[in-house]
Amino acid sequence: MNTPIRILIHGSSGRMGQALQRLGKQPASGCQVVAAVARRVDLRVVDGIPQFAASELSGVPDFDVAIDFSLPQGFDAILQLCLARKAALVSGTTGLSEAQQAALAAASERIPLIWASNFSLGVAVLHDLVERAASMLQGWDCDIVEAHHTRKQDAPSGTALTLGRSAEAGGAHPHYASIRAGDIVGEHLVQFTSAGERIELVHRAHNRDIFASGALHVAQRLHTRPPGQYQVSELLK
Amino acid sequence: MNTPIRILIHGSSGRMGQALQRLGKQPASGCQVVAAVARRVDLRVVDGIPQFAASELSGVPDFDVAIDFSLPQGFDAILQLCLARKAALVSGTTGLSEAQQAALAAASERIPLIWASNFSLGVAVLHDLVERAASMLQGWDCDIVEAHHTRKQDAPSGTALTLGRSAEAGGAHPHYASIRAGDIVGEHLVQFTSAGERIELVHRAHNRDIFASGALHVAQRLHTRPPGQYQVSELLK
Amino acid sequence: MNTPIRILIHGSSGRMGQALQRLGKQPASGCQVVAAVARRVDLRVVDGIPQFAASELSGVPDFDVAIDFSLPQGFDAILQLCLARKAALVSGTTGLSEAQQAALAAASERIPLIWASNFSLGVAVLHDLVERAASMLQGWDCDIVEAHHTRKQDAPSGTALTLGRSAEAGGAHPHYASIRAGDIVGEHLVQFTSAGERIELVHRAHNRDIFASGALHVAQRLHTRPPGQYQVSELLK
Amino acid sequence: MNTPIRILIHGSSGRMGQALQRLGKQPASGCQVVAAVARRVDLRVVDGIPQFAASELSGVPDFDVAIDFSLPQGFDAILQLCLARKAALVSGTTGLSEAQQAALAAASERIPLIWASNFSLGVAVLHDLVERAASMLQGWDCDIVEAHHTRKQDAPSGTALTLGRSAEAGGAHPHYASIRAGDIVGEHLVQFTSAGERIELVHRAHNRDIFASGALHVAQRLHTRPPGQYQVSELLK
Repeated sequence: MNTPIRILIHGSSGRMGQALQRLGKQPASGCQVVAAVARRVDLRVVDGIPQFAASELSGVPDFDVAIDFSLPQGFDAILQLCLARKAALVSGTTGLSEAQQAALAAASERIPLIWASNFSLGVAVLHDLVERAASMLQGWDCDIVEAHHTRKQDAPSGTALTLGRSAEAGGAHPHYASIRAGDIVGEHLVQFTSAGERIELVHRAHNRDIFASGALHVAQRLHTRPPGQYQVSELLK
Repeated sequence: MNTPIRILIHGSSGRMGQALQRLGKQPASGCQVVAAVARRVDLRVVDGIPQFAASELSGVPDFDVAIDFSLPQGFDAILQLCLARKAALVSGTTGLSEAQQAALAAASERIPLIWASNFSLGVAVLHDLVERAASMLQGWDCDIVEAHHTRKQDAPSGTALTLGRSAEAGGAHPHYASIRAGDIVGEHLVQFTSAGERIELVHRAHNRDIFASGALHVAQRLHTRPPGQYQVSELLK
Repeated sequence: MNTPIRILIHGSSGRMGQALQRLGKQPASGCQVVAAVARRVDLRVVDGIPQFAASELSGVPDFDVAIDFSLPQGFDAILQLCLARKAALVSGTTGLSEAQQAALAAASERIPLIWASNFSLGVAVLHDLVERAASMLQGWDCDIVEAHHTRKQDAPSGTALTLGRSAEAGGAHPHYASIRAGDIVGEHLVQFTSAGERIELVHRAHNRDIFASGALHVAQRLHTRPPGQYQVSELLK
Repeated sequence: MNTPIRILIHGSSGRMGQALQRLGKQPASGCQVVAAVARRVDLRVVDGIPQFAASELSGVPDFDVAIDFSLPQGFDAILQLCLARKAALVSGTTGLSEAQQAALAAASERIPLIWASNFSLGVAVLHDLVERAASMLQGWDCDIVEAHHTRKQDAPSGTALTLGRSAEAGGAHPHYASIRAGDIVGEHLVQFTSAGERIELVHRAHNRDIFASGALHVAQRLHTRPPGQYQVSELLK
């Protein structure tokens, strides 16, 4: 196995931050979590991972990639740190301002970085396949059905809508249906139907760890790339 | 609507030949069936379509594309006719000899042509998607499940095996399962599974007309291409 | 094989009437079509089946079961004929008046009869299973998804709504989603979801002949029953 | 909410025992775990639940139902205790001897009890539905497809085989296919196919907690029943 890449986890107290620490410290991950940063810190070391407060960010040890699932107010600091350290950045922080998005684009000229709303590798692949299928199946009907747990309030899901945009990019005009039931983690079906035949493209998420393990996987693929702003599916090719 | 392309149907008495005549004469097909050729002919005109015996092949009217679902012994004649008339050739004739395959390759330098075992557009797209998915999902498990009617004797189906080769071309190692039940026209599932998530790519054929309508669709796409040997999925892009 | 039961087809010119004649004359059907009745008749015999005009109804030969897919205005006559001949009645005629429904109920004291909106055996079984599942899965979420061809104008489909009533009879509170795509004959999914597990009950209709072959099957099961008004699922047990 | 029923967990150190303690102490479970018994005990109380060694079994506090996922060598003791305390018994212990099975049957004359290999409520319902569907769909083809994680070594799965017996009890002759991929918890499809239509009955387990929560659910249903040996599906009606 190669030398593990050194990961900084920014936003370590949320569900993603916790999962990233748990999965990132497994030897099979190919990663070494060098530090975890939260707004406040109670213990200096948790499960072998050094913990830093946001105010101590400049003092974290060397790292190759920062993985950021925090809040917009902490975003500028981690972006600056990555630029200063010439490290890559993987961010899933939602709610970035236009100025922050512009800063992200500007930074991509100096470091490799990626921002995505969903780090499931399967969803990234599905996006790619949906656009490709739509472009080859001109005139076929396109329907998107998604199913999630009953606590989810928006419908269609954000992922269903972005899948719909992938279908539209290929020339399709998707219709949507949503199911809210039980504790379904997340399922998306994109279906193309013609006279006499049908193609169904389905993604099923069985557990939530795929979002953290996907971010770790992406971090490893991003690490060796030249500066630029990437999409998850590009990093899988 | 554009000028309909002129179609010659070679091998008009089989199931495909009959379906091609029935579907090809519908105005929405974008085709005009100028003649149908069978080994023997009883009537000179059937449903408005002039009928020719194989021995009269040289006398058929002008055509843009020949669609050939006949037997190997008739193949050389239709290939020569297409070369002589500078027409395109769509062939699904099975059992071609190596010499015939070589002749096909040689002819592709002078006319556009395609040979395929399955002219379902959906299956062509599925092949393309499977190879692409496999190349992006390195290390995921790959399973192919196909279902067909109980009269089908081979298992896995030929289409399942070629889907498997598409998956292998992308780096996957597929496992196969087959179901024989009722009068299922044909269904293929290619599934990629990882820890915590899964992608399912499915094609369902609802009726057999898709093979003839796919051949007619391919004929229209092929007609305007430069000489060469094409695959169905290339013609859909 | 047993002696074939003698079938009278009432309403022979519609799509169901045509399919009933085509399927009913196959030896494997276990039926013998003794006559077909339409409003008007051009030929006295079609494909070996004697044809009668509605005005000649009283002159049809002996039969065991009448299968009626006609219009409300012809319903009273066929019901009276079945009573007079002590024959069973299978009817799928829609739009019966309340008086006609009352006459049907009254007749069920003297002959075995069945009225249904859908003679697919699979749909009948699905109704039975859905009610049973709902009664055993108290508190599980229930969702019904149906898919039909784009020409279908009502949504949810009538069958989806009656499946919903079966689910409600078992104690569930179903939600509905509808897909209109291609030429899908008809598919219904009833899904029960809880924390951590899920049951999916699906019916797929691949072609329209199942409605006629289901009516013929029901006719054979009904023939030997005592007088009464039956449901399709009862006749399958 | 009703008074919680008092649960004794026998075999508390295995995966099921751990899940039973974790889920059983949640207020929504309707249970109160009064004690957990393991072969050896390190701490007297864990997460608020008193822990007993097997040698101390006679000293456990009063309980309504014992849930036993232990080993055959501990089975006689827990059965005797339930008889002595007039408590119900839920057991999933595998490998019972014939003598132990006979003792179980004899005990069922004095206390309500259940032994099952799978306490998923959904699987229990699926068994019921499969037998019912098979009995109504005489002559339809029956296929069973199951998918599990790659560590599972037996194929078809035990549950697939018992589903097959349910299908056979209804008159079907099932064929089996197995998929081993990723970390799939467990999925079973029982499919009935005829000419032109198809019924698919599917169970999907999303996480392993359903086996423990199913056992707790069954315990509550069993508690108020008269003496006898029950099946899971009977307790859901």
